[in-house]
Amino acid sequence: MENGTAAEKWRFRGNEVLNTASAITIRGVLNEVMDNIEESGPRPIIPLGHGDPSAFPCFRTAQIAEEAIVDAVRSAQFNGYASTVGIPPARSAIADYLSKDLPYKLSPDDIYLTIGCTQAIEAILTVLARPNANILLPRPGFPFYEARAAYSHLKVRHFDLLPEKGWEVDLDAVEALADENTVAMAIINPGNPCGNVFKYQHLKKVAATARKLGILVIADEVYDHLTFGSSPFVPMGVFGNIVPVITVGSISKRWIVPGWRLGWLATNDQNGILQKYGIVDCIKGFLNITSDPATFIQGALPQILGKTGDDFFSKIVNILREVADICYDRIEEIPCITCPSKPEGSLFVMVKLNLALLENIKDDIDFCVKLAKEESVVILPGVAVGLKNWLRITFAIEPSSLEEGLGRIKAFSLRHAKKQ
Amino acid sequence: MENGTAAEKWRFRGNEVLNTASAITIRGVLNEVMDNIEESGPRPIIPLGHGDPSAFPCFRTAQIAEEAIVDAVRSAQFNGYASTVGIPPARSAIADYLSKDLPYKLSPDDIYLTIGCTQAIEAILTVLARPNANILLPRPGFPFYEARAAYSHLKVRHFDLLPEKGWEVDLDAVEALADENTVAMAIINPGNPCGNVFKYQHLKKVAATARKLGILVIADEVYDHLTFGSSPFVPMGVFGNIVPVITVGSISKRWIVPGWRLGWLATNDQNGILQKYGIVDCIKGFLNITSDPATFIQGALPQILGKTGDDFFSKIVNILREVADICYDRIEEIPCITCPSKPEGSLFVMVKLNLALLENIKDDIDFCVKLAKEESVVILPGVAVGLKNWLRITFAIEPSSLEEGLGRIKAFSLRHAKKQ
Ligand SMILES: Cc1ncc(COP(=O)(O)O)c(C=O)c1O
Ligand SMILES: Cc1ncc(COP(=O)(O)O)c(C=O)c1O
Repeated sequence: MENGTAAEKWRFRGNEVLNTASAITIRGVLNEVMDNIEESGPRPIIPLGHGDPSAFPCFRTAQIAEEAIVDAVRSAQFNGYASTVGIPPARSAIADYLSKDLPYKLSPDDIYLTIGCTQAIEAILTVLARPNANILLPRPGFPFYEARAAYSHLKVRHFDLLPEKGWEVDLDAVEALADENTVAMAIINPGNPCGNVFKYQHLKKVAATARKLGILVIADEVYDHLTFGSSPFVPMGVFGNIVPVITVGSISKRWIVPGWRLGWLATNDQNGILQKYGIVDCIKGFLNITSDPATFIQGALPQILGKTGDDFFSKIVNILREVADICYDRIEEIPCITCPSKPEGSLFVMVKLNLALLENIKDDIDFCVKLAKEESVVILPGVAVGLKNWLRITFAIEPSSLEEGLGRIKAFSLRHAKKQ
Repeated sequence: MENGTAAEKWRFRGNEVLNTASAITIRGVLNEVMDNIEESGPRPIIPLGHGDPSAFPCFRTAQIAEEAIVDAVRSAQFNGYASTVGIPPARSAIADYLSKDLPYKLSPDDIYLTIGCTQAIEAILTVLARPNANILLPRPGFPFYEARAAYSHLKVRHFDLLPEKGWEVDLDAVEALADENTVAMAIINPGNPCGNVFKYQHLKKVAATARKLGILVIADEVYDHLTFGSSPFVPMGVFGNIVPVITVGSISKRWIVPGWRLGWLATNDQNGILQKYGIVDCIKGFLNITSDPATFIQGALPQILGKTGDDFFSKIVNILREVADICYDRIEEIPCITCPSKPEGSLFVMVKLNLALLENIKDDIDFCVKLAKEESVVILPGVAVGLKNWLRITFAIEPSSLEEGLGRIKAFSLRHAKKQ
């Protein structure tokens, strides 16, 4: 029997929604680009594609954060299941952390612990996904939103970020796109992929627009406080009295520990609207039927958020300022790519590819594939973040590697320049 | 403006599926029961309701496991994002761990790391959820399956576990329930909530039935190796040549670290059927658009799985045998509850409530609520796991507390006994 013929017919099949929803991910596109690199090439690979500098020694996390984890594990106080919204000390610590930048105080009950900012996005998109509902997402953006929306059958409409205006939201477009089925708009600030930082006045206009439309604002602040230009970081929650704001964030970027998978969702809801419209109950419902962040990492959070010194934060921001400057200056020297505005935050910059200046380069993917093959440099084709024939360059790597990588991009571009 | 009147109408609402799907969870039911306890009562609360003994000193995890985490964090090698299927050394370690009990070797590519067994269940139920598909689940069972099935619009049909046959699967019922839209059946072994352990011959019959029906078997082995009776643990993967088996598991129970959130999904698919029918690609698709277990916990896994000594495992199993014996013996002394078979595995036993012997106790919930109020003892009403007027008792607590708890249940039962 065991080795007999297979059953005539197996009745299970894979759920196609998963194939559709996961078709475009940053990791997926980067893997395709990287497949073109000759592993045994003479020069080291320079990764300017992904947003995870944790492997570089200069970006190692704060020692106090590592020790907080060690203490939490050794205490054996955090080996058990946590409550689905997160353990109380961790919720309090996040409420305090976020409240420092707000004109009012968040309560621990406004905070939900999630498995990175990733699960916070999952949560809110799932909660909003009712039949026919649509959501407004930025272009360029972070494709995980599109993936989760597709998975939850939440329709997506895109508004543009305007390169000529420092990547501000095209608020006229937002108004034109919204209809009675629109439930929310999302912004990412500091910006991925653009490296922009929204100003107070602009965020206030975003709030007013959303209020007028009767929609909530999802504020993705996973790059909070990673700013190094003229605009300080202003959390969208500042405008929680104008419009209900769901803030999503994590320790992934500011502490450079994306592998720790600790994030949060915060409801900035001074007028109790999210509660009244059933959003809060559904967030709890979602968290009741999914997994949680590791309890001992939750247990370490009060120490991580409360005790990390300013010296660590300024060291990181200073390195980012330095590499962003290098990046901007070197890009200026490369004729076929232009940078509409100098990055002021996050880890990335978007640059425009001028194909007319290049020979035998079809599009952004072709550029990245050939660059990978010839120069062992990885950058992200703009199409992965919604802008064809643009490129997203990560500058958050060791400064000398960045110089080297941009040098190779320049050599590549000159070699492929159209002969006049 | 900020303090003006609220918008006429907000357009977002919570997604009701989440309320429906999360309506019955073990944690939810236990919280309801616990709400009846007087916090300031004179006696300590005795928790016989949930499956997490990690807080008891005698159930502290292995020191080598804690040190593995400490080493992984301090190495700073695991601060970054992991690949969505898990890091290769962790996949290899799990493949080796599971292969020890199999007649063939799993490859690291058969293993997917998940955020506890919880996310592995999420993954496979999502993957199987195509329009009209149905799945066969055990009754009594683990209500998370029902919740995730409801969330994914996967229909559920229940087959009974037979108390008079040591909680074996009613295979005739399985055959009668299945139709052309049935895609899978799930078993939990060792059993939650019944504390049973399936024998080799019975599992082989399960495999043959599933093969005949053309459905796959989901084998929830989160309690793997927690056996202390006459039946050894046999993994369902042993029958992977008869029928495709998806094994889900974690370190939560055997290492008593449910808060570490590290689990796996393994495809036992010697004939390549899961690959051919698109299940494997969809598992990857699911993992591409969800969060991952913390990378440094993945990094610690080779040491945790490879180096934990047999002394730790036998210590835990010996305690479980001791408390299971206590539990069984004390229950024999309580007239209104009967235990159809002595538990041989996991952390639980199911007992039947004889309401005819009790005064003023309406049902299992009423029993548990009054017990909580009067005796500060928490047990789980059977209705939470699908069997009304049964009770699930967790025996995995410190032996002296267990004695005390069962003593209080006895006192409660005698006090509420119907006068003859
Ligand atoms: C805009 C944005 N949101 C969310 C995330 C996910 O962050 P986390 O690592 O906290 O899950 C990222 C990661 O790159 C991101 O760029
Ligand atoms: C049968 C069963 N499956 C899965 C789980 C979830 O386990 P984990 O902690 O690994 O997510 C549990 C937890 O109690 C369980 O009893």
